[in-house]
Amino acid sequence: MEGYRILEIKQSVFENNDREADKLRAELKQNKTFLLNLMSSPGSGKTTTLRRTIEALKDEVRIGIMEADIDSDVDAATIEKTGVKVIQLHTGGMCHLDAGMTKQGLEGMGVEDVDLAILENIGNLVCPAEFDTGAVKNAMILSVPEGHDKPLKYPLMFSICDVLLINKIDVLPYFDFDIEKCKEYVHRLNPNMKIIPISSRTGEGIGEWADWLREQTRAWIEG
Amino acid sequence: MEGYRILEIKQSVFENNDREADKLRAELKQNKTFLLNLMSSPGSGKTTTLRRTIEALKDEVRIGIMEADIDSDVDAATIEKTGVKVIQLHTGGMCHLDAGMTKQGLEGMGVEDVDLAILENIGNLVCPAEFDTGAVKNAMILSVPEGHDKPLKYPLMFSICDVLLINKIDVLPYFDFDIEKCKEYVHRLNPNMKIIPISSRTGEGIGEWADWLREQTRAWIEG
Repeated sequence: MEGYRILEIKQSVFENNDREADKLRAELKQNKTFLLNLMSSPGSGKTTTLRRTIEALKDEVRIGIMEADIDSDVDAATIEKTGVKVIQLHTGGMCHLDAGMTKQGLEGMGVEDVDLAILENIGNLVCPAEFDTGAVKNAMILSVPEGHDKPLKYPLMFSICDVLLINKIDVLPYFDFDIEKCKEYVHRLNPNMKIIPISSRTGEGIGEWADWLREQTRAWIEG
Repeated sequence: MEGYRILEIKQSVFENNDREADKLRAELKQNKTFLLNLMSSPGSGKTTTLRRTIEALKDEVRIGIMEADIDSDVDAATIEKTGVKVIQLHTGGMCHLDAGMTKQGLEGMGVEDVDLAILENIGNLVCPAEFDTGAVKNAMILSVPEGHDKPLKYPLMFSICDVLLINKIDVLPYFDFDIEKCKEYVHRLNPNMKIIPISSRTGEGIGEWADWLREQTRAWIEG
């Protein structure tokens, strides 16, 4: 039997998502839980990066993972093996999560014993960027095979994130991906974006990413 | 000066998209224009595959390309160099195109001298699958770096397409992508899906894909 629950998320009934998101952040602050919203295209390596992140941090902070997906539970099954708390959220075809949906997920998972909650959002560079989930910080992954021109094509996503992981740098020799050009495009849209090149396969860069996330989590919990 | 036009697409006013899509297909049939709707994740290689497709077919059929994007015109600039008719469609943040929006694009481009029109849809595996654009056939690209589990996670997209191009097979040695497993997942959802492995970088498989597209176009125009 699986050790994780599958929760069918209902569509939100709230008219003002920004207000619900602010309320959710206030609740998270009170509960001393940091929430990270992790977004990317399908197949850029969110789940593998999460696995690496969990390995790096699980002895220091109590982690809870919400795996959002339209239909499957392959990601929750993967994350379960790490031993941390995990719940699979099904969006019933919805292409994004808003604050109301995220709140359902957090309640389904339970955050009383969680310092760092991570929402793995639906693989989509368009719609999730339009909805504040209530997360404290927004992270995104762009992988090398996708190309360095993506900031030009999905500007909103690159504008609303706090940190960008450039993943799959182990395959840089096989793709025409210009990291410097990518950074330039990103910083033109979002001068404050923290950019960390990583390989979730080899583990390269995961230390720097884990440091950033640990620091953000502590600042939120203790601040 | 650019040789292509940028058209700002307006949101559709029609309530029944399926009816509009059927009407558009009937108009295309009368005009003897085949419309292909090409969908994929961001960065799976739609534009490069289109360039290869144009090279393979432009001496036999008159081609017109609609590049849909939220904001940029990098793809139209790329396609323009091939010498075929091209228009850049801006969706103003919209994550998909429906039949009404596609019709605006076709009218903006002009189809009286086009046998094969191709819509490069927004890079997104979720929303575009929900809207019939009026295309005669739906094609999608899944690239090797995205992983073979994507049919499990985005089942609707894999269900509504007629042909799947598995792109970037030149990098198969560097990724854990199981083509046979991918085919099995796809055919479980969609037993009739035609699957063609390609590399838009090396040109491998483009011949088979061009043959399929030529045949479909001729059957529609002459049928």
